[in-house]
Amino acid sequence: MSPSSPTPDPRLSINQATIKHADLATALQVTADAGVRSIGLWREPVNEVGLDVAARMLGDSGLRFSTHCRGGFFTLPVGPERERALDDNRRAIEETATLAAAGAAGSTAVLVLVAGGLPGGSRDLIGARERVRDAIGVLAPDAKAAGVTLAIEPLHPMYASDRAVVSTLGQALDIAADFEPEVVGAAVDTFHIWWDPQVLEQIARAGREGRIATYQVCDWKTPLAADVLLSRHYTGDGVIDFASLTRAVIATGYDRDIEVEIFNADVWADAPENVVRRTVETFAAAVSPHLG
Amino acid sequence: MSPSSPTPDPRLSINQATIKHADLATALQVTADAGVRSIGLWREPVNEVGLDVAARMLGDSGLRFSTHCRGGFFTLPVGPERERALDDNRRAIEETATLAAAGAAGSTAVLVLVAGGLPGGSRDLIGARERVRDAIGVLAPDAKAAGVTLAIEPLHPMYASDRAVVSTLGQALDIAADFEPEVVGAAVDTFHIWWDPQVLEQIARAGREGRIATYQVCDWKTPLAADVLLSRHYTGDGVIDFASLTRAVIATGYDRDIEVEIFNADVWADAPENVVRRTVETFAAAVSPHLG
Repeated sequence: MSPSSPTPDPRLSINQATIKHADLATALQVTADAGVRSIGLWREPVNEVGLDVAARMLGDSGLRFSTHCRGGFFTLPVGPERERALDDNRRAIEETATLAAAGAAGSTAVLVLVAGGLPGGSRDLIGARERVRDAIGVLAPDAKAAGVTLAIEPLHPMYASDRAVVSTLGQALDIAADFEPEVVGAAVDTFHIWWDPQVLEQIARAGREGRIATYQVCDWKTPLAADVLLSRHYTGDGVIDFASLTRAVIATGYDRDIEVEIFNADVWADAPENVVRRTVETFAAAVSPHLG
Repeated sequence: MSPSSPTPDPRLSINQATIKHADLATALQVTADAGVRSIGLWREPVNEVGLDVAARMLGDSGLRFSTHCRGGFFTLPVGPERERALDDNRRAIEETATLAAAGAAGSTAVLVLVAGGLPGGSRDLIGARERVRDAIGVLAPDAKAAGVTLAIEPLHPMYASDRAVVSTLGQALDIAADFEPEVVGAAVDTFHIWWDPQVLEQIARAGREGRIATYQVCDWKTPLAADVLLSRHYTGDGVIDFASLTRAVIATGYDRDIEVEIFNADVWADAPENVVRRTVETFAAAVSPHLG
């Protein structure tokens, strides 16, 4: 940590995707070295070392565990491929529970779910959305038994056909409404929902219904990257009003960690310790003032 | 028209942007030659020849006039730039009335409005949206006097920051609700709203409230073009379910022309007569069966 860097916000969590090319050991190290207290992990680097080793490494790091990314991909029609996806989600639930138990006090057992896009050749968006609800119904008992919250993540509507047929926070809450709040919640990610004319009322609703499983931040800027998946930016580098969104989330009583998750080729090309430092600085400037 | 081409649907209208590089004379010619009955025009090619000449050319073509594109750009703060934008919209209203009067019987005087994005350096999305409402309030008396309907076009949320802060049909209808339906309506464009979990109920609402000023179709396909503005495709080439959307629009009693508006570099590089022929074919296959 350079002398001029601010003290990391105690609620900041580094989502591992922000330092995508770091392996698990490096990700834990640079996060802890920067004085950040929390981390969100991705399944691939965890499974690279194996769950037991990953849990021990996380425990040794002293970091809290904020979310596990990610389950989902629920839109497949009935058949063996869908069964395999559901089994994979059961493993993700188990991983989430194990990692949350291994993390420092204040860790949360939250599995982020990306619903999945339209199956190849299909135009049946409504049917795909119903299959998401069905899949969550299948997995909810497993999640409950493991003490894990499934966090449905609405993705920006530009991903509706190929990544997630859940496109708004309101829609995620409508799906979650069939289940207990500690079992099925929503991921509130500024990048995906900042444009929504109903965003503030839906955040308030999510809070009333006890459904904000995780709050994630990053910024939106145009022109979008040629691969629109990689258009996420450091907080403050774009046009999102973190004041109103963050205050709305905090006003619901949300008291968990806040993750920064950035998919961006330039960020990924930078050294992970630089990325964490810049994340600390930009979070302190754009988000911390609104944490009340 | 090649012998194998279907007879153009009598409700099909070619939006001039689909054959962007054709001047007005060419656009009218290839559209009429293909047996299409209606056209939507853009301001730039109209003003290239002058309004009076354009109106005479349109009249001579025998085509109906379906919409004029476009007004809007309402998000600027109070000041001379905003006043200039409003004046320019007044001219667009006048153009719309003149062209609608010059077109064949069944022409409609509809000016499509693209709200505009966030002003440079601003993060005040709510404020920008309020300014859209204010601007429409300023222009509504002019539109009413001219017999023109202002059609607020919700644009896909991926354009929320740089093109249009109106992102859903519901939001467009909320703004329109302050005005008479024959003065302020909405543009229902499949590309922009197909993803919306509320789309069918909002189309029904738009119909009940008498607000569907124009129905426009084109398709959505991923990966998106590197310039996301140019990601529009021929109907049937992507994932949009034209059956459910078109039936919902028709169920409201919508009886006007239906425009195909495609922004796509490959389509623009093709000869305009090819583009019109392909539009006729793809509309016949993907949209006509649902017109009841």
